[in-house]
Amino acid sequence: MTGTVQASHVLTVATRGKGFIEITPELARWLENISAANGLLTVFVRHTSASLTIQENADPNVRRDLLDALEGFAPEDRRYAHQEEGPDDMPSHIKAMLTGVSLGIPVKDGRMTLGTWQGVYLIEHRALPHQRTIALSFIGETSPA
Amino acid sequence: MTGTVQASHVLTVATRGKGFIEITPELARWLENISAANGLLTVFVRHTSASLTIQENADPNVRRDLLDALEGFAPEDRRYAHQEEGPDDMPSHIKAMLTGVSLGIPVKDGRMTLGTWQGVYLIEHRALPHQRTIALSFIGETSPA
Amino acid sequence: MTGTVQASHVLTVATRGKGFIEITPELARWLENISAANGLLTVFVRHTSASLTIQENADPNVRRDLLDALEGFAPEDRRYAHQEEGPDDMPSHIKAMLTGVSLGIPVKDGRMTLGTWQGVYLIEHRALPHQRTIALSFIGETSPA
Repeated sequence: MTGTVQASHVLTVATRGKGFIEITPELARWLENISAANGLLTVFVRHTSASLTIQENADPNVRRDLLDALEGFAPEDRRYAHQEEGPDDMPSHIKAMLTGVSLGIPVKDGRMTLGTWQGVYLIEHRALPHQRTIALSFIGETSPA
Repeated sequence: MTGTVQASHVLTVATRGKGFIEITPELARWLENISAANGLLTVFVRHTSASLTIQENADPNVRRDLLDALEGFAPEDRRYAHQEEGPDDMPSHIKAMLTGVSLGIPVKDGRMTLGTWQGVYLIEHRALPHQRTIALSFIGETSPA
Repeated sequence: MTGTVQASHVLTVATRGKGFIEITPELARWLENISAANGLLTVFVRHTSASLTIQENADPNVRRDLLDALEGFAPEDRRYAHQEEGPDDMPSHIKAMLTGVSLGIPVKDGRMTLGTWQGVYLIEHRALPHQRTIALSFIGETSPA
């Protein structure tokens, strides 16, 4: 065992309005860059109108249905007290509350222990494109160079 | 202090269709096996149609009502674009998105810092029985043998 | 690098019935007390009718709308099997399941890597005031005294 270390990084993702953006390859690449071996990866989105989920990476219709479901949980045509930032803002906060902004993913032998059909997604809830920043943290063992 | 170490394990759980399955005893047993003392336990389900929650472990009616609530959030008789895997599949993905696939639980003196009424549950969202795998990670101090 | 350490704490929060209570300052103060530098903060609420979320800390109307949304997801006037603890208890469990009881927040240079508009909130779902306990865990590097 090489002793436990910690590393951090900030990932920037450009979104194109409401939708799922897969970030699994970016996470895998960072783990490789820091020679992560065994430990814990934490993924944390630094916004309140975007969020994170781990979901099926096969049929794109799954993400379409998930977006529809989120729309149903927080419709834009409801009457909200918070109106100042446009009709898609308050629904975005509700969707972010339901899905969450942090994920912990165990890492084994340098790889996230994702299941075969699992991908890590940033969900953009706002109608317009945004630059989103995601804080990454790894704690665990690294492999010798 | 003994220095910080990390350990990992894979737990396999057989489900019997839709329902809550308590995994608190299995988690406690693994922490004991590895002599975990103080640190962080991460529980991660490697599927997109099953998920994790921490909920009341007393009245079984609570879990019945929680299942009913999940059914209401993602009814099988709605029209989904993703249809290929049966009427219970897309609702399962929605339920998994709402409840989440990873949990971080602080560990103190070898025990999870759960409240009196908290149990850790795997939620099976599919109608048929499945074998589910759960990745466990512990980072922290262990007690001397 | 100073080596990886772990620290833990229990935070007690007095609530005043349904509502959001910001705990960001208490978390920041604890990180300062233990000289946390870089690593991971885990926040874990030890109850099943209160939960945690990270949400906008600017317009108070956002929290009002979030409470309304939660009320809509789990109305008190629905028929629940679990009735013994009052009409607000089962809705509280549903709301806690939807929002979650644990959060992982990366820490960098002694500070949580929160976005500008992010605050960490305990959500009380019960109608009456309660004492809530929150377990905190930090794993990572500390700064030299």
